[in-house]
Amino acid sequence: MSIRIGIYGYGNLGRGVELAVQQNSDMTAVGVFTRRDPKTVQTCTGIPVFFAGDAEKMTEDIDVMILCGGSATDLPKQTPILAEKFNVVDSFDTHAKIPEHVKNVQAATEKLGKTALVSAGWDPGMFSLARLYGGAVLPNGKDYTFWGKGVSQGHSDAIRRIEGVVDAKQYTIPLENALTAVRSGQNPELATDEKHERECFVVAAEGADKARIEREIKTMPNYFADYKTTVHFISLEELREKHGGLPHGGVVIRSGVTGVDNQHKHVIEYGLKLDSNAEFTASVLVACARAVYRMHQEGNAGCKTLLDVPPAYLSPLSREELLAKLL
Amino acid sequence: MSIRIGIYGYGNLGRGVELAVQQNSDMTAVGVFTRRDPKTVQTCTGIPVFFAGDAEKMTEDIDVMILCGGSATDLPKQTPILAEKFNVVDSFDTHAKIPEHVKNVQAATEKLGKTALVSAGWDPGMFSLARLYGGAVLPNGKDYTFWGKGVSQGHSDAIRRIEGVVDAKQYTIPLENALTAVRSGQNPELATDEKHERECFVVAAEGADKARIEREIKTMPNYFADYKTTVHFISLEELREKHGGLPHGGVVIRSGVTGVDNQHKHVIEYGLKLDSNAEFTASVLVACARAVYRMHQEGNAGCKTLLDVPPAYLSPLSREELLAKLL
Repeated sequence: MSIRIGIYGYGNLGRGVELAVQQNSDMTAVGVFTRRDPKTVQTCTGIPVFFAGDAEKMTEDIDVMILCGGSATDLPKQTPILAEKFNVVDSFDTHAKIPEHVKNVQAATEKLGKTALVSAGWDPGMFSLARLYGGAVLPNGKDYTFWGKGVSQGHSDAIRRIEGVVDAKQYTIPLENALTAVRSGQNPELATDEKHERECFVVAAEGADKARIEREIKTMPNYFADYKTTVHFISLEELREKHGGLPHGGVVIRSGVTGVDNQHKHVIEYGLKLDSNAEFTASVLVACARAVYRMHQEGNAGCKTLLDVPPAYLSPLSREELLAKLL
Repeated sequence: MSIRIGIYGYGNLGRGVELAVQQNSDMTAVGVFTRRDPKTVQTCTGIPVFFAGDAEKMTEDIDVMILCGGSATDLPKQTPILAEKFNVVDSFDTHAKIPEHVKNVQAATEKLGKTALVSAGWDPGMFSLARLYGGAVLPNGKDYTFWGKGVSQGHSDAIRRIEGVVDAKQYTIPLENALTAVRSGQNPELATDEKHERECFVVAAEGADKARIEREIKTMPNYFADYKTTVHFISLEELREKHGGLPHGGVVIRSGVTGVDNQHKHVIEYGLKLDSNAEFTASVLVACARAVYRMHQEGNAGCKTLLDVPPAYLSPLSREELLAKLL
């Protein structure tokens, strides 16, 4: 009764999902689906590789399809298409467009009564949960999300899609004085650009117009336009040497008050320190696949997010084990 | 369409619930139920006081009853009785007895199809959620819960129930070297008494047998028997002056690895710094009452814990607001 997982897209995130499935004894990875020639793709653990276009022939073989494409162009198209025939999980992370994405995926799930969970990962995802729980239990308060220091894959991908860019890495960096003020319970008002800066390391193609690339980065809506952004052009060699990893992290802080005279301060802090952003995101997606499988088994169809999932559905432990050992 | 809340028991926790309800515009506190003479009880916000025995006449007036008694003797009896006729929330926190409590409350809810949520608060409660989410997303890892430094109400209450004790405060204190080892990702094996110590400040009645009181504290199962415990006998005056507050806090840390060679470390840390343990616990109970109300409206009856609650049910925000602003 293993949960059969399909992996749609095979970059860093797809490889992370493949490895994460191996850590969960109640799941099996059926295979990877790629738009490349399957013969050219070698998986980490030797699972089969199929052509993406053949996925729809395998609806009977897969319980949950985990989509591992990018949010900029892949997921807005792929998730609604696949949610017509599969239970799906994705990591769509363009915050401003989540309502539209949920609406599109919801409509797709309704065709055959499938279950989808979108915008999973750590932000949106685990950080969203931290914001929700913090606000629910401390309504008289404020919350703050700080990212980094770390590489944002979404932002790096967005730079790579610009014409003339060979490769790129983007670091999100929290501003230390802002973090200190928030942890002390001062509840400061902080605009987006007063909490973080964005630092970009970009490899330009030979002869590319660097001024245009820099302008396109700095004015990109949702991704960079609202932030202080620094762009460094470096060689491919330097990028690989100094910026090879994908670390990330951050904190969500809820600071609130209670009491007759609001005299009692409370600070809730949820923090992540991640050596590999993609592998941690993948681990969240895999836990979500378990929840999607269970919700679908119970006839709970439609487009969900982590905010809709009873936490116990994410865990391999039985209710008895949870009550006895974990609660 | 305000959610009508009853408050059963009126000590620190009951007062905290009364104040927390005021922070939530979708709720109204109907009144306090006490075993004392109602005429002798003055509420913080002027809400009515009823005799506990009259609660069952008010089943039509209350949507959710929040139980604010202690775990040692009150809740094991009261929650099952009240769950027959009311939707209820409690903060039962004797970890070893949670499965039995859930079973008793479940049976009670089945009489009239009521909804109960037990063992809410911060541990069990928010910390249980942190343990569950951490374990679900990092299965190849370990988790650690540290409490304090802070006053444990449950442990202080347990001391106060001992014959000859006038009043008492118990501090739970994390051992710093253990905390440092865990945060560094060393994943040490730590026995219960290698993570914390317990320090008790006790006011004995005149002529009471202090040696017997100290022995009863140190051998009390579930509460003290497994810990290094220090007992100080002090005057009532000193207790009020130096140990008047109810601060608490702690952290849940999940440390795990991913990657082809388990080469990537990840550390998740959920931390609380609370000026008032009772008021924070009360704030959690009130958010849970909202979830209980919604689950009951949907016909979802039975005995739940926070692990069973879709997070969105705790929030006053609509699904549209959550997707647009919080996810």
